[in-house]
Amino acid sequence: MARLNDHYLKLRAGYLFPEIARRVRAYTEAAPDQAARVIRCGIGDVTEPLPAAAREAMHAAVDELGERGSFRGYGPEQGYDFLREAIATHAYQSRGVEVAADEIFVSDGSKCDTGNILDIFANGANRTAITDPVYPVYVDTNVMAGNTGPADASGAYEGLLYLPCTAANDFVPAIPDEPVDLVYLCYPNNPTGATATREQLQAWVDYARANDTILLFDAAYEAFIRDPEIPRSIFEIPGARDCAIEFRSFSKNGGFTGVRCAYTVVPGELTALTSAGERKPLHPLWSRRQSTKFNGASYVVQRGAAGLFTDQGQAEVAALIDHYMANAALLREACQQIGLPVYGGVNAPYVWVGCPEGVDSWGMFDRLLQQAQVVVTPGAGFGAAGEGYFRISAFNSRENVEEACRRLRQALG
Amino acid sequence: MARLNDHYLKLRAGYLFPEIARRVRAYTEAAPDQAARVIRCGIGDVTEPLPAAAREAMHAAVDELGERGSFRGYGPEQGYDFLREAIATHAYQSRGVEVAADEIFVSDGSKCDTGNILDIFANGANRTAITDPVYPVYVDTNVMAGNTGPADASGAYEGLLYLPCTAANDFVPAIPDEPVDLVYLCYPNNPTGATATREQLQAWVDYARANDTILLFDAAYEAFIRDPEIPRSIFEIPGARDCAIEFRSFSKNGGFTGVRCAYTVVPGELTALTSAGERKPLHPLWSRRQSTKFNGASYVVQRGAAGLFTDQGQAEVAALIDHYMANAALLREACQQIGLPVYGGVNAPYVWVGCPEGVDSWGMFDRLLQQAQVVVTPGAGFGAAGEGYFRISAFNSRENVEEACRRLRQALG
Repeated sequence: MARLNDHYLKLRAGYLFPEIARRVRAYTEAAPDQAARVIRCGIGDVTEPLPAAAREAMHAAVDELGERGSFRGYGPEQGYDFLREAIATHAYQSRGVEVAADEIFVSDGSKCDTGNILDIFANGANRTAITDPVYPVYVDTNVMAGNTGPADASGAYEGLLYLPCTAANDFVPAIPDEPVDLVYLCYPNNPTGATATREQLQAWVDYARANDTILLFDAAYEAFIRDPEIPRSIFEIPGARDCAIEFRSFSKNGGFTGVRCAYTVVPGELTALTSAGERKPLHPLWSRRQSTKFNGASYVVQRGAAGLFTDQGQAEVAALIDHYMANAALLREACQQIGLPVYGGVNAPYVWVGCPEGVDSWGMFDRLLQQAQVVVTPGAGFGAAGEGYFRISAFNSRENVEEACRRLRQALG
Repeated sequence: MARLNDHYLKLRAGYLFPEIARRVRAYTEAAPDQAARVIRCGIGDVTEPLPAAAREAMHAAVDELGERGSFRGYGPEQGYDFLREAIATHAYQSRGVEVAADEIFVSDGSKCDTGNILDIFANGANRTAITDPVYPVYVDTNVMAGNTGPADASGAYEGLLYLPCTAANDFVPAIPDEPVDLVYLCYPNNPTGATATREQLQAWVDYARANDTILLFDAAYEAFIRDPEIPRSIFEIPGARDCAIEFRSFSKNGGFTGVRCAYTVVPGELTALTSAGERKPLHPLWSRRQSTKFNGASYVVQRGAAGLFTDQGQAEVAALIDHYMANAALLREACQQIGLPVYGGVNAPYVWVGCPEGVDSWGMFDRLLQQAQVVVTPGAGFGAAGEGYFRISAFNSRENVEEACRRLRQALG
């Protein structure tokens, strides 16, 4: 009798973004004349055209596949050398960070990688810490893997260590005073837009090395960091190669949310323990996982990603980042003028805003939807400590952002 | 102290295709003048140009992404409706098979899907049966998930039920005389090229329904079936919607091994048991798995796959299948003339050949490499029951296949 994975039944039904979509649908069905006015600043999805450097590379790759002499079938599961080498050079080595091409695993997305990474760890035997608020995928994949008990009434899962991020700690959590085995960190942060200083990241690396903890470092938004003092990679921190895996993506810098390409760095030095207490490197395990359960990202897509590293591609990526960061500045300014507490949006594409006195996250969501036809993300959807906040995404056209700012001022000013 | 997944350490080091690559490399390094002569009929990778219908659709999709008005970011994790509906209509409903668009989950590959599907089952609580010989991914992913003990000296993993496929049973295994929870079936078969009759598949469905077994049916090669009496889908068999998941791919029919697109069908009726013995549908579990750990196949790739369902696309796919099947006929003929026992290659792109008296699979591999510079796949690499056979892939140019046939006749005739 086939048995299903019971852990799935612990998952709370209302995943955040489907619930948002449901409420928007209900609203526009009830007020169809308002439907066209809705401006979506909820989910962090890019809106601007794919860079020409990527498109040209993709067109050329499609043409290559049309000729028998240049046709390519199965590629290396870990990614083509042309892309792994471009990443190693441009994303790391040119910035003085030691990451080799063969430590880079190209994939079809960071969501996949941050979820699948649990495959190489012992399910049920590791204690996991996450920040609160948090990107829901880290939590849900730990639930699926059996690393938690059931959720309580507040939605917190038994067995997870929640690290609250609040205005008091500038949304960078304190180092835990107990050992944990896996810690998810995301800087620049989704959802709060917070960044971590070199000293803060050094403290995490020191903790991880002292406790044999693995840091799962999500750097999907590193391209939005403007302050040269803020690390863009965990591997800028001495000792991180012993204790960290880094996830990066072309989604938000290159506009690849629909094209799908990302990569994960597993340093050669990184180890974990067997149940017998033997220390083994993780690189071969992830390599085996990817070779067995993945067949490489699309050749056409990998060529597109490599196109982003040309001079033209780098200039186009910089222009995209400029565009979204100017949006973030406008959104910050509008919320500040209204008199709300505003965080993030400086080295990150997310603006994290405190709700007015007496309004909770979902109340604010409903109010902005109904009064301003602006869709935001309720902070409580990212965890209990997100209650009282909402997130505005800067991923939009300038026109939409300017209009959203006008309406926010009108509804809340 | 982070603990790794010990089950990975049970995996045997020599995955088949890397070992083949190693031996080919060693040979060509020792005999560099022969390197250019090597003809690869080992791994089942397509060689012919990507159909124009797919390329044109991909070019158009890339252009769409270059305009803000038609730009698309995140798509539905389960696939775009345009592709799910095309699959439902063309691959199933037009053949009288009941599969709805929302039962189809588009992905980036069947290797991924056949591996990831174990996520929704209870690891360690299900007994799995596989055929022998078998596509190694089914075995390795069960090892990784903790559904087996260690391998014995012959490479067989404790806890798996191996179903031997031999000339005596026409390479379709007997129904087990004990209950199992999960069974992997692949027809047309990789590696033997065998197909299963309607009666044989009905017997599997009856067994599965009687024992609450899930059939994991890999139909990646269904397009190669020419005989109208042979089912192309498990869902042609009455009762299969209660007990089967089907995996299909655009890799081998549309030449998508490098482009990456596949799909998995999970019928609404399909259920499995919780540990408490409650019966629950699997469709929501797989949907949740894909929503949480996957972000949809590339938009460009999905447009390419949909292009294969146009009239032009269908004609181009048919021409590709014709091409590879004519290759298979030539390879069959050559091996028959040599006097070797020949199987498969009629409704499948793989020809399964018995070794001459006294030569084992790897011996044959080495001999063909050294004497004919033809790379085949040793049957023993697919399991103990594959010993004494080798597989020749029909995925090649006509020129290469004709030359390979000449050399096989010369070396073995």
